[in-house]
Amino acid sequence: MRTRAALAVKAGQDLEIVDLELEGPREGEVLVEVKATGICHTDDFTLSGADPEGIFPAVLGHEGAGVVVDVGPGVKSVKKGDHVIPLYTPECRECPSCLSRKTNLCTAIRGTQGQGLMPDGTSRFRTLDGDPVFHYMGCSTFSNFTVMPEIALAKVREDAPFDKICYIGCGVTTGVGAVLNTAGVEQGAKAVVFGLGGIGLNVIQGLRLAGADMIIGVDINPARKEWGEKFGMTHFVNAAEVGDDIVPHIVNMTKKGADQIGGADYTFDCTGNVKVMRAALECAHRGWGVSVVIGVAPAGAEISTRPFQLVTGRTWKGTAFGGARGRTDVPKIVDWYMDGKIEIDPMITHTMPLEKINHGFDLMRKGESIRSVVLF
Amino acid sequence: MRTRAALAVKAGQDLEIVDLELEGPREGEVLVEVKATGICHTDDFTLSGADPEGIFPAVLGHEGAGVVVDVGPGVKSVKKGDHVIPLYTPECRECPSCLSRKTNLCTAIRGTQGQGLMPDGTSRFRTLDGDPVFHYMGCSTFSNFTVMPEIALAKVREDAPFDKICYIGCGVTTGVGAVLNTAGVEQGAKAVVFGLGGIGLNVIQGLRLAGADMIIGVDINPARKEWGEKFGMTHFVNAAEVGDDIVPHIVNMTKKGADQIGGADYTFDCTGNVKVMRAALECAHRGWGVSVVIGVAPAGAEISTRPFQLVTGRTWKGTAFGGARGRTDVPKIVDWYMDGKIEIDPMITHTMPLEKINHGFDLMRKGESIRSVVLF
Repeated sequence: MRTRAALAVKAGQDLEIVDLELEGPREGEVLVEVKATGICHTDDFTLSGADPEGIFPAVLGHEGAGVVVDVGPGVKSVKKGDHVIPLYTPECRECPSCLSRKTNLCTAIRGTQGQGLMPDGTSRFRTLDGDPVFHYMGCSTFSNFTVMPEIALAKVREDAPFDKICYIGCGVTTGVGAVLNTAGVEQGAKAVVFGLGGIGLNVIQGLRLAGADMIIGVDINPARKEWGEKFGMTHFVNAAEVGDDIVPHIVNMTKKGADQIGGADYTFDCTGNVKVMRAALECAHRGWGVSVVIGVAPAGAEISTRPFQLVTGRTWKGTAFGGARGRTDVPKIVDWYMDGKIEIDPMITHTMPLEKINHGFDLMRKGESIRSVVLF
Repeated sequence: MRTRAALAVKAGQDLEIVDLELEGPREGEVLVEVKATGICHTDDFTLSGADPEGIFPAVLGHEGAGVVVDVGPGVKSVKKGDHVIPLYTPECRECPSCLSRKTNLCTAIRGTQGQGLMPDGTSRFRTLDGDPVFHYMGCSTFSNFTVMPEIALAKVREDAPFDKICYIGCGVTTGVGAVLNTAGVEQGAKAVVFGLGGIGLNVIQGLRLAGADMIIGVDINPARKEWGEKFGMTHFVNAAEVGDDIVPHIVNMTKKGADQIGGADYTFDCTGNVKVMRAALECAHRGWGVSVVIGVAPAGAEISTRPFQLVTGRTWKGTAFGGARGRTDVPKIVDWYMDGKIEIDPMITHTMPLEKINHGFDLMRKGESIRSVVLF
């Protein structure tokens, strides 16, 4: 079949809106009509050429929502008409990772997904000239129709609006999940969030949900103060003003009552900057502070610190897709949105048709949007 | 009173066996007759001058066992005749750290202890000429008699032999505790221990106690293979032979059955070498591997890695005194020794009188001893 798509022809170029040929679903695969898709920094990371694993030409996009149009042989968990969210982290429930009960990082199709291919080692996308086009993160939601492995689809309730829940396919789950699944934040905690973009704001609302008492947001953009406060931030630090003293500054802010050591119970890096990751670790509380890396660093960049920081009780962790198991947890997060436990609407600052997708990338690069959503 | 002690006069010199003047216990303090004390790498780290916080002249030693001789006003938890193990990590049960339930790093007397002083800011030791001598790690067990804060004494059973349980004052608790308290190793786990000295061997026996299935020991000294096997090591890797391929080498060793990703569930650095700490992290299992830093690194040394290692599910932690709360946990570990759950006797490879203490340091530096114990 034909599908309208935004094609990443090569690194560093704008996406091109084209018609592509899409082959139907093979065994264990599902054809999905994408109804809405968010534009995420990770798409831009790959499009820019900075992603060492980026492959072109490809259909990018990994934050979508849509409807099942057709299923291949053997597909049991979804059927035509089901509403679904594509998962760049699948959940096969059979691999050693899924069965470990300790991680969400299903490895069933890791090899082929990283190569831009379906699990059988081939692509469903071609140009109209017949040249192969790669999949991206197993999703390729910048196409009106896409083919997904069954294990990479979360079935969700049908009354949830596509133009909002698409954000649960990456940003919302990553931020809220980092708080609930990876950090395990408890009532009354003190927390710091570095970087108040689309991920950071979702970390903030995750912290509010978890009952954190002190939610410190850190950004170099003063306009983000108001944004943070919308979702539960209690204190704002302008990192551009504080400069190199950011660690003692935050440690001092968190001293309270008998605790004159200071430091946050939980800190989150949502910047991808390795210097910020270090600061996030070092302003975690002596004895028990946990720091979670969420941001994606440039290729080759390394984090470092004195091991003394760990020996005196700090823990350095990371999270991917918020530690969420896609098929199990994503439908719950959709429920939370529908029940009003978490917000999404105010974060969707811009919507646009596929033809304007490059404008959405521009807004993101300039920091003018929180999230742009393409509506098909 | 007079006490015989090994005095660290200045950095880089042998200890001098001298008589010192010891003032009796003040409020909240206890006079202890030290019956036995181990010699630990940390003592040598300070004596060498590499410890940036080292202060001289001082009475070193922090791994002892002895008997209460006298108590100062207000002391309630121990009395004359009680058998005790001095604690360089005290347990006041009242500070924010103790009350957090999340750390063993009591901060009640941290400031003065780091300055080589009793909690009231003074020293109990003097030379016979009246010059002040500093305490060390709040213990100073290289003196036949020492004064300790009450909160830094674990009361232990009286049938336990001093010449063995002194080792519980540091090495045993650090190693076994890192496994049980900090890592929380479960039955069937795969683990790697880097560095098979006095700490590493105790990590190994902690892993055996926890029920680990695969216990890989790594050292550059092939003679340590036999030592590791005595305490439960199942596989030995000679790091000098494997060289830079140590991470893939270990990852391959741990692949089993359906799990062809490989990596250890838990890894422990007992070397203090920051490059080894990185290798320990990176051979932890994708998705859930936990790496624990135990070794003390040289001043200024930093650990580093790509943040991708954390984002894909590895956790980097550290431990001090094995995460053990001294007054609560140390008596239990003494019970475990007396019940035969853990071994100590074979690790005490050398004993000597105080006059031979410098020989004990030499044995340790040459890797010829596991633990030397000074008997008073």
